[in-house]
Amino acid sequence: MSNYQSLKEECYEANMMLPKLGLVLFTFGNVSAVDREKAVFAIKPSGVPYDILKVEDIVIVDYDARLVEGKLRPSSDTKTHAQLYKNWESIGGITHTHSTYAVAWAQAGLDIPIFGTTHADHTHQDIPCAPVLTDEMIQGDYEFETGNQIFDVFKAKGLSHNEVEMVLLQNHGPFTWGKNAEKSVYNAAVLEEVARMAMLTLQINPDTPRIKDTLRMKHYERKHGKNAYYGQGC
Amino acid sequence: MSNYQSLKEECYEANMMLPKLGLVLFTFGNVSAVDREKAVFAIKPSGVPYDILKVEDIVIVDYDARLVEGKLRPSSDTKTHAQLYKNWESIGGITHTHSTYAVAWAQAGLDIPIFGTTHADHTHQDIPCAPVLTDEMIQGDYEFETGNQIFDVFKAKGLSHNEVEMVLLQNHGPFTWGKNAEKSVYNAAVLEEVARMAMLTLQINPDTPRIKDTLRMKHYERKHGKNAYYGQGC
Amino acid sequence: MSNYQSLKEECYEANMMLPKLGLVLFTFGNVSAVDREKAVFAIKPSGVPYDILKVEDIVIVDYDARLVEGKLRPSSDTKTHAQLYKNWESIGGITHTHSTYAVAWAQAGLDIPIFGTTHADHTHQDIPCAPVLTDEMIQGDYEFETGNQIFDVFKAKGLSHNEVEMVLLQNHGPFTWGKNAEKSVYNAAVLEEVARMAMLTLQINPDTPRIKDTLRMKHYERKHGKNAYYGQGC
Amino acid sequence: MSNYQSLKEECYEANMMLPKLGLVLFTFGNVSAVDREKAVFAIKPSGVPYDILKVEDIVIVDYDARLVEGKLRPSSDTKTHAQLYKNWESIGGITHTHSTYAVAWAQAGLDIPIFGTTHADHTHQDIPCAPVLTDEMIQGDYEFETGNQIFDVFKAKGLSHNEVEMVLLQNHGPFTWGKNAEKSVYNAAVLEEVARMAMLTLQINPDTPRIKDTLRMKHYERKHGKNAYYGQGC
Repeated sequence: MSNYQSLKEECYEANMMLPKLGLVLFTFGNVSAVDREKAVFAIKPSGVPYDILKVEDIVIVDYDARLVEGKLRPSSDTKTHAQLYKNWESIGGITHTHSTYAVAWAQAGLDIPIFGTTHADHTHQDIPCAPVLTDEMIQGDYEFETGNQIFDVFKAKGLSHNEVEMVLLQNHGPFTWGKNAEKSVYNAAVLEEVARMAMLTLQINPDTPRIKDTLRMKHYERKHGKNAYYGQGC
Repeated sequence: MSNYQSLKEECYEANMMLPKLGLVLFTFGNVSAVDREKAVFAIKPSGVPYDILKVEDIVIVDYDARLVEGKLRPSSDTKTHAQLYKNWESIGGITHTHSTYAVAWAQAGLDIPIFGTTHADHTHQDIPCAPVLTDEMIQGDYEFETGNQIFDVFKAKGLSHNEVEMVLLQNHGPFTWGKNAEKSVYNAAVLEEVARMAMLTLQINPDTPRIKDTLRMKHYERKHGKNAYYGQGC
Repeated sequence: MSNYQSLKEECYEANMMLPKLGLVLFTFGNVSAVDREKAVFAIKPSGVPYDILKVEDIVIVDYDARLVEGKLRPSSDTKTHAQLYKNWESIGGITHTHSTYAVAWAQAGLDIPIFGTTHADHTHQDIPCAPVLTDEMIQGDYEFETGNQIFDVFKAKGLSHNEVEMVLLQNHGPFTWGKNAEKSVYNAAVLEEVARMAMLTLQINPDTPRIKDTLRMKHYERKHGKNAYYGQGC
Repeated sequence: MSNYQSLKEECYEANMMLPKLGLVLFTFGNVSAVDREKAVFAIKPSGVPYDILKVEDIVIVDYDARLVEGKLRPSSDTKTHAQLYKNWESIGGITHTHSTYAVAWAQAGLDIPIFGTTHADHTHQDIPCAPVLTDEMIQGDYEFETGNQIFDVFKAKGLSHNEVEMVLLQNHGPFTWGKNAEKSVYNAAVLEEVARMAMLTLQINPDTPRIKDTLRMKHYERKHGKNAYYGQGC
């Protein structure tokens, strides 16, 4: 039995949530889960359909995306995951999908404006859309540079990855993360719903202003603030 | 066994209709059921996923949202429910969701215009959208004031809560109610469908006028009037 | 056992297709099936949810909507069905729904333009939208007059009910019919899909012209013409 | 037992994927699978519902659409399939559907612009929309000419059917193909999703530019190029 058995299981279970939540067509997505003590993470193998995926197919790699254990090739997006784990020490899981509405915003090249409390319950900022990579980055170490592009947009906008657990890559799609793999998938589903609501809102009223600051922070704080009273406090 | 066993069961069953009807993602919704004799109501605990929710998790509170029975923290929206029960004596159940199309209209900050008989079968008025709360209300007793904001929009528009069993809160989402918890969930599903139809109608014809008065009242009255002949008369 | 047992079963089975095809929310629809020899038709009882509907609940009425057999009140739309059966002798079943996209076009008050072969495979004309009834008709024998309004739009546009088996009622929704109850439900599903495709087509290209005559008639004829070669010829 | 048993089974299994993937309503689609050695292909019989379709119903025809084996009439689109197999020797399976968003683009008469990596992962070009056939072609050997219209648009745009495995027919809908029947169905599902994403993208930002060349080719090549590293290399 693998030294990474429980990590593989966490990764497998989180990956299997993607088709259940309607976030993937065929193999268009992947989830990883990190073990901070061992400094490795588990990730879906590339191109393996969800309905035949098994726990033992999950691949273990380190923060430089080097293979540690596994018979299959890891996700082609592995270096992006590795970059995020290496630089953002507080995160425990990462999800990448091509979910429909999040991709539509990414293709449109726009941040998702914060219009309501469904959005503010999860983050107090617009969901940032990182601009398309430069030709140099694309023709260089593309998936590694994708991670850098995410860091750049967070720096440029002064965002914290602990407060904004999601990003769009222009012309591509979303990455989300969280304290563990399951939470990163949860965030992927929230992002897709928020993206859909924002698109519909603009169809109804193209001049919709953003939610006002007091309500925005009220909802964020009641769920994430010091005196949060949403949930069971665990 | 609890003194409120059957009330908890009614509340539980109504809550479980939300995921079945596609009205909630994760924990984004809650239903309550009132016992008018005992002057208490049962409500979903905060942040508990539907697939692990049990009858005994349901929380009992009074009309001032004070805990009467239960081990878990009640929904963060409990004070809004309490306000509605306290002031509107005829209602027996309340539902709050973040259903997609109702939220889109709430985010757009617009009443849902009455375009057809699907809408008029349930109410003869536009679905009102209560304006966003003042900063004072938001930073004060927010969920309590949300109830007041609902009363205000009903007063300002001269609406009866017995004829219009649904409202949108700007930048937030819908609340619906009815003679019991099940009826309030029914109304939440109707509202979502009416919201979707109205949005699509405006996509096809942005200049669509409202349904004319005779047809509007004909459909409302054949279902709710003195001489109603829809249904089995029970 | 009822003299109308098999008619009731046909009607029941066709009604149960509505929720399966996603064409109804709650009780927003009804199907009827006619027995031309006995000059009666079977129809869903008013307001009975599909998940508790039973064969013996189905109501038998004559072409003047008078009760022939049944303990429950028939659909509130029964007189519209009766009018269609009385005047259009070739039809064997009728379906009424409030399906989302068909209602959106009805609320918009527009005929559904014939944009493609999916539409032309079923009828060679735009789907007509009958204008809203006059106040006199609405305040008079409303459901009876709804039938007359359908006849009027077919006459005004020179349409045959054997070639166009569907209509929209402005501000209300669709009625469809066919050689039997099952075919009328089939047509209700086709109409909903055609309505959705037409709406999306106009979103992509608001200036989309109708399908040209040769292609329109080619597709209609290969399925319905004298030399039809679609299907197994039975 | 038939000489074409395994070919029929491949064809049957691929056809049964269509309802499972939500790509067909009723009988609005068909899949074929070719046997290059025997120079025949298997195709769905015309107008047979998927829920009663059996392996033995599958029809075997040659590249001129002449019946080789089978008791039922083959799909009315058989001659289009035959033309494609006859002229494009590398393809092993063909799918035709009336899937909603692909049809909407076909009805709008527009190529689907390449906006993102979901699209570029599968082809590096806009999805071409072949113009509506001339009256002569429609009134002549229509389904045969449909094949020719596909060849014409590929020639006019300088496309390779090995790189672009999908096409729209104006006012009609999509055809897709691939190395086998299953792959052609896979492509039909990808096309539908890409069509939906492109439509939504333009709703959010009507001025969205195409994806830039470097990113477009990067994604295509990492999956289909000489040094492809997506998937398990099999």
